[in-house]
Amino acid sequence: MTEPLFFEDVAVGDRRTTGTVAVTAESVIAFGRAYDPQPFHTDAEAAVESFFGELVASGWQTTALTMRLLVEGAVLGGTPLIGAGVEEIRWPRPTRPGDILTAETEILELLPAGRRPDIGMIRVRTTTKRQDGDAVQTMITRMVLPRRLPAAE
Amino acid sequence: MTEPLFFEDVAVGDRRTTGTVAVTAESVIAFGRAYDPQPFHTDAEAAVESFFGELVASGWQTTALTMRLLVEGAVLGGTPLIGAGVEEIRWPRPTRPGDILTAETEILELLPAGRRPDIGMIRVRTTTKRQDGDAVQTMITRMVLPRRLPAAE
Repeated sequence: MTEPLFFEDVAVGDRRTTGTVAVTAESVIAFGRAYDPQPFHTDAEAAVESFFGELVASGWQTTALTMRLLVEGAVLGGTPLIGAGVEEIRWPRPTRPGDILTAETEILELLPAGRRPDIGMIRVRTTTKRQDGDAVQTMITRMVLPRRLPAAE
Repeated sequence: MTEPLFFEDVAVGDRRTTGTVAVTAESVIAFGRAYDPQPFHTDAEAAVESFFGELVASGWQTTALTMRLLVEGAVLGGTPLIGAGVEEIRWPRPTRPGDILTAETEILELLPAGRRPDIGMIRVRTTTKRQDGDAVQTMITRMVLPRRLPAAE
């Protein structure tokens, strides 16, 4: 078990790189059928006539696969990954079957606790890249980190 | 087939309400295992000891289910739903097994074409509510709409 990471353990500029995940046509179609049933996500033939011209992953699958990379990559050590919200997501190009994705995180800002003294927040930029290094997604999120409680006085 | 909607057909303030989708424990666990493998999304027993105290859906599953509601609800008529990016997502409370979700959209702004005269963009607020009317997600996205091409002069 990896050691949990606390708010006091992180700094602006900290970076992590995750492992990889391979995107298959089967998983693109399964996600599309369940969550984004449009022809360009569910049917390789019909996709040719569509906006994208080929079968592509739902942007939300790229986001979900990124989450899996962050969890499996234990980017906050043993601390659970609890999202407090999203500030921005961009999909500069679509994820396609055959792509191999990896994610890179960078802490942009530390946001000390508001009402709760036991947690802090971090603003994190996550860039999801495919095998050629081009980004398929950029995202800025806020995540919750526990704080080490101050010693009783 | 529903008529496609063009940029010229929509106005700020336009609202739509989708149908509903039921959230099952099975689908929460399946999504969790595939995309957000943390105990509070994959294991009802282990979830009791976790941050959430119970099994809850990944926030990204709430987002994905919202996409399904928007597609099935044909909120842009017969026009495909092409996201151009996300400006904000908040999850004021988690989605839980047994919840029945619905989504409401409102057009916040029309953003006429930049370089491409054949498309326009709209800023849309989407609120995902559960059966008691409380929001489990609020989101602001940009979506692409085709423009009616001007007549040749």
